[in-house]
Amino acid sequence: MTGTGSTWADPGCGVGGGPCDDVLLARAYLNRVAEPACVPLWDFVRRVGPVDAVTGIRTRRAPDDVLRATEARHAWADPEADLAAAERRGIRLVAPESADWPHFALACLERAGERRLRELRNPSTGAPAQREPDEPVPPVALWVRGTGDLAGLATRSVGVVGARSATAYGERIAGEFSAALAGRGFGVVSGGAYGIDAAAHRGALGASGVSYLVSAGGLDKPYPPSHARLFEQCAESGLLISESPPGAAPQRRRFLSRNRLIAAFSTGTVVVEASARSGAANTAKHCLRLDRPVMVVPGPITSALSAGCHRLLQRHEGQAHLVTSVPDILEHIGSLSDLALDRAGPDDFGDRRAGLVDALDRTARAVLDSVPARGVVGVDDLVTVAALPVGDVLQALSVLEAAALVQREGTGFRLRRPAPASGT
Amino acid sequence: MTGTGSTWADPGCGVGGGPCDDVLLARAYLNRVAEPACVPLWDFVRRVGPVDAVTGIRTRRAPDDVLRATEARHAWADPEADLAAAERRGIRLVAPESADWPHFALACLERAGERRLRELRNPSTGAPAQREPDEPVPPVALWVRGTGDLAGLATRSVGVVGARSATAYGERIAGEFSAALAGRGFGVVSGGAYGIDAAAHRGALGASGVSYLVSAGGLDKPYPPSHARLFEQCAESGLLISESPPGAAPQRRRFLSRNRLIAAFSTGTVVVEASARSGAANTAKHCLRLDRPVMVVPGPITSALSAGCHRLLQRHEGQAHLVTSVPDILEHIGSLSDLALDRAGPDDFGDRRAGLVDALDRTARAVLDSVPARGVVGVDDLVTVAALPVGDVLQALSVLEAAALVQREGTGFRLRRPAPASGT
Repeated sequence: MTGTGSTWADPGCGVGGGPCDDVLLARAYLNRVAEPACVPLWDFVRRVGPVDAVTGIRTRRAPDDVLRATEARHAWADPEADLAAAERRGIRLVAPESADWPHFALACLERAGERRLRELRNPSTGAPAQREPDEPVPPVALWVRGTGDLAGLATRSVGVVGARSATAYGERIAGEFSAALAGRGFGVVSGGAYGIDAAAHRGALGASGVSYLVSAGGLDKPYPPSHARLFEQCAESGLLISESPPGAAPQRRRFLSRNRLIAAFSTGTVVVEASARSGAANTAKHCLRLDRPVMVVPGPITSALSAGCHRLLQRHEGQAHLVTSVPDILEHIGSLSDLALDRAGPDDFGDRRAGLVDALDRTARAVLDSVPARGVVGVDDLVTVAALPVGDVLQALSVLEAAALVQREGTGFRLRRPAPASGT
Repeated sequence: MTGTGSTWADPGCGVGGGPCDDVLLARAYLNRVAEPACVPLWDFVRRVGPVDAVTGIRTRRAPDDVLRATEARHAWADPEADLAAAERRGIRLVAPESADWPHFALACLERAGERRLRELRNPSTGAPAQREPDEPVPPVALWVRGTGDLAGLATRSVGVVGARSATAYGERIAGEFSAALAGRGFGVVSGGAYGIDAAAHRGALGASGVSYLVSAGGLDKPYPPSHARLFEQCAESGLLISESPPGAAPQRRRFLSRNRLIAAFSTGTVVVEASARSGAANTAKHCLRLDRPVMVVPGPITSALSAGCHRLLQRHEGQAHLVTSVPDILEHIGSLSDLALDRAGPDDFGDRRAGLVDALDRTARAVLDSVPARGVVGVDDLVTVAALPVGDVLQALSVLEAAALVQREGTGFRLRRPAPASGT
């Protein structure tokens, strides 16, 4: 995976396989030329494609806001060096054109980015015009190391975040919840920091589960350095993920933009302990903005490390949910079978199913309605029956699968039956 | 205060002063002849008056459900003995006809009783037809001992309830919150039990505040007996209140019906620690039914004594409010000046005032609109300007006063100005 950098070819060369080298090289450049989470850059790339975007930026023929955002680094960025450094360390660059790009997880950031773009273009909405360090836009590319399933993120994963200076109470809960959820097949997503993050990763790993460590800095520079072994362990079963190229130091703004990825990569996020001003509250803010469930563990009101948790519950009453157990968490992010397993009686079960179906968007509902009551149906047939583009059908199927309304069988799908209720 | 019991005279004899002896005697009989919180009895008394109700019950000429409810005790109840026993112990009977009857506090039970009556008469609503031990109806009378302000209850009082087997954490919080609220002029209402109740009473008393102890049994029989001194202290500055006549033992059903009084007597109620199945949860249920704020203190999820608190917050998301501090509590039950004092900036202040005004019912709003922008207005003038019955105007004024929208001045009222904001 080395780019010659001499030609910025048509991205079409990647069709049918992964992206061609030039697309990856362009993405590596774009990833370096402005800090992540830059709305104008994201929009420019979206409109003209990565290769032409790079040409435009290099030759200073791009929209003004893109020129401003890339002013400092457009001549200095060296994507060949970044890719080479990454390759030496077992890190690969994954682009939206790659087969394993996490489309499902990042769809929420696509939508949020579009909303933000409309706000920026229409200042009369009163939305802040200045660029925040953690604008809700998808990354232009991701640096990744490990064996875990990137594309499947957010279909069955749980963010577990909280204070670095956690107490024994918080670490115990983060560890126990993560172990139990990992044991049920949830990937545990966290940020690799001291305290709650580390307890979450270790809980998942201890249960032979999968953990996703989303780093704010380059993946060759574990931060904190004493967590080098933890980074290794996460890479072995799961993934290390970062927007920052190798060598990048973890800076404050990178932590903030990183938090939006934790939110997006998680079906829902649990905040275990957080002080009044905390990164975990920032992650929770992203979750709320992206319509991902925020679950909050309360604690003693005499503990400064639960103050941020309680504040989340107070400020977002009805949106941030108090949880005290794994079944509580599964109520928010589990599939129907998780719920049946844990506590729901038959009536509850039907209610939840109905609630889930109600919550589907029109496309997902159309696809669900096209799945026959019995037997397996192929994607091609669904495209015909639902009269929708294949891309839409595939995305809807991921949603339906995540909601446990359909299940894969061979190359097709079938309706998923509720598990038999455990009660009467 | 002794009744002859020989004649069941017209209650009109009490007009202008307290109720006449015969009305009190009738109420004492009614209080004894069926357990408190009996919907048919409450309705019968409401329709025919206490004296005729007693005659009807004694002569067995009353609605069937009243006859059934009074079957066991109609010949046995001995109100003269109850009143005499009470008088010997400094306990008095307060009736709805008495000047110090807590009309403001009990208005919520009147409304709830009317709703319940409609349900019982219209079984098609699907409401349970069987009588619960804690039906939401006003008491027919109250046994009272002490010097506190019964009539003013719920205008500025806070219920503090929780587990008997509280932890040091819960007792500390109950004591500190109660002391701080008592110091701000809130009466602290609780049930006199071990644990949270006792800590609440003691916190208020320790701050030289007023505490209201609502007992499930007769006021001559402190329960638990070791709280005899606590009962005395509450009577000295506040009040002991019970629906049960002297000598009555605190039975389970009496605890449940007692809890509705704690809810009604409190502007809002704080649940400090509660196990999963607890009396405090029952009190909270009454609060929700009576539209009184329920505030809940979270705790460690590893503590069984916070499980009931967390469950309340989960089951009544958006209705039961998490609180961690006295300012949090004041946000729910304080007046505008409390809020201004504690944390609100000028804008907040206006918002809250607007919110309060929005929350008023039509009568209260009409009365508020009739108070001139400057100067003092008498009740008679308000009756004329608002074109409302004097009773409605008086009740509306209590509400407006409790909401700190008007204040008394001499024999009249004036608009209350927001306290100057402490901020900019």
